[in-house]
Amino acid sequence: MMNTAVGLIGLGAMGSGMAGSLRRAGHNVHVFDIRPGVAAAFAEQGGHACATLAELAAACDVIVSVVVNAAQTEEVLFGPGRDGSGCAAHMKPGSTFVMCSTVDPQFSIGLESELQALGLHYVDAPISGGAARAASGEMTMMTAAKPEAYARTGHVLDAMAAKVYRLGDRAGAGSKVKIINQLLAGVHIAAAAEAMALGLREGVNPNDLYDVITHSAGNSWMFENRMAHVLAGDYTPLSAVDIFVKDLGLVLDTARASKFPLPLSSTAHQMFMQASTAGHAREDDSAVIKIFPGITLPEGAKKA
Amino acid sequence: MMNTAVGLIGLGAMGSGMAGSLRRAGHNVHVFDIRPGVAAAFAEQGGHACATLAELAAACDVIVSVVVNAAQTEEVLFGPGRDGSGCAAHMKPGSTFVMCSTVDPQFSIGLESELQALGLHYVDAPISGGAARAASGEMTMMTAAKPEAYARTGHVLDAMAAKVYRLGDRAGAGSKVKIINQLLAGVHIAAAAEAMALGLREGVNPNDLYDVITHSAGNSWMFENRMAHVLAGDYTPLSAVDIFVKDLGLVLDTARASKFPLPLSSTAHQMFMQASTAGHAREDDSAVIKIFPGITLPEGAKKA
Repeated sequence: MMNTAVGLIGLGAMGSGMAGSLRRAGHNVHVFDIRPGVAAAFAEQGGHACATLAELAAACDVIVSVVVNAAQTEEVLFGPGRDGSGCAAHMKPGSTFVMCSTVDPQFSIGLESELQALGLHYVDAPISGGAARAASGEMTMMTAAKPEAYARTGHVLDAMAAKVYRLGDRAGAGSKVKIINQLLAGVHIAAAAEAMALGLREGVNPNDLYDVITHSAGNSWMFENRMAHVLAGDYTPLSAVDIFVKDLGLVLDTARASKFPLPLSSTAHQMFMQASTAGHAREDDSAVIKIFPGITLPEGAKKA
Repeated sequence: MMNTAVGLIGLGAMGSGMAGSLRRAGHNVHVFDIRPGVAAAFAEQGGHACATLAELAAACDVIVSVVVNAAQTEEVLFGPGRDGSGCAAHMKPGSTFVMCSTVDPQFSIGLESELQALGLHYVDAPISGGAARAASGEMTMMTAAKPEAYARTGHVLDAMAAKVYRLGDRAGAGSKVKIINQLLAGVHIAAAAEAMALGLREGVNPNDLYDVITHSAGNSWMFENRMAHVLAGDYTPLSAVDIFVKDLGLVLDTARASKFPLPLSSTAHQMFMQASTAGHAREDDSAVIKIFPGITLPEGAKKA
């Protein structure tokens, strides 16, 4: 089991780190990325660069998909317009697809059923922690899967993450917990921006405010992390405004399906959409503070 | 300086701990509380119980006010209906009034001016940290004052708090930072409730959700602290729903004065008002989760 043929699709900020962790753990790693050359560059240090998804699928027992959203996940599995060119048609019987994107939980639940009908296993496995932790194998996975899927993939999941939460015995709970984390992350970033903006409006020294809040009951992981970007005047995107337009949208879609009210999530979503359409879509998500009028934000070293 | 005659007004959860810290530091502590017997009970271990505010004011060089709100602060200083029965008319020339309540910053700024005209000093000094930290002298003070007020009170403030933030050279910044902390605290409690409620609606195990979130980027100090109450089904008030009806109201009043929009604060304020008027005003602030329909909350040991 410890030298498994693992395919990893999507060598972005998270995926490339995860593929590296799998390689370090001694697995037989196959990689695919739509950008020419990215897979080949990875394979120079070990592993196999695949030219097509079909080639990757045919070679692997576990396939880990680290693409941006549900639409890309569907294309990876079934091809553009479900033309059959994706992995699903070429996967070995009894192999497992590990879905790491942040998606509507109902989408993930549907994939498990569809793959089961094809004789394939499935792990609902959104990830969290950022690129640095992905590279060091210290990220978090929020997973749910049937026991037979865990039996085939547990050692692979453990090779990529410091903590693999097992949240249910079928798909759904992983994606649900992930979007609830995004609910809190998004609301907390927008709340941090609102608080810092009020401080600036009231003439409070923003560095003093940061110092007090990060040592008080008003603190959040996101306030501490993102308001440092605002104080530095640095909106280089680590995670962009449009990520939260998407993720809070998924949160609201999920709740709407059961007619469940989310007053703060819907308000924060409006704030990120306002920031996006005002021209800050690809800036760091802390740029949501730019929707507030009548304040002067700290300027960054780059502008000085 | 180290054996100062200090008066403390309001022996509630915070004030009684602060008075104890002052006594331990060797100060000559005078106390007053409107509840008969509370001051006398305190003085049994040392210090002086005062029967009237006038008696306390006449005996002390520094007076620390730890009452609930601006209205009580005004009554402490000027008497009911400004009938002159409060401290201000009886304070020694050059003595200092330390205002520890959470109030509109403009109210605090106004008090400094009014007391200065009477020849009295003033420290804008809201407090944070809870009753346990107040008792151990480990709470936080968010202060702003003129240098001459700090010169007379610095050692007294340090006796009560582990950290005394000095945020400005006149009144205002202390109260501003305090209400911005309350903005974040209130929004984070309401967001934590919204997230936990969605998890319950979606059938996620609430203990699993708590475990994941408290180890993820979606965490906040308030999520970690208050959702433990929800999981235990224990709404015994450590801080009540109506505290945030009041404090988010102060936040909104402050911002309204400069026509500054606060989308999340106003939404969270509505949520606490809904909880209050639905019958949960005096329950723990985490009871804001009870506004969400269509979910079953964990039951507490008390109800089992």
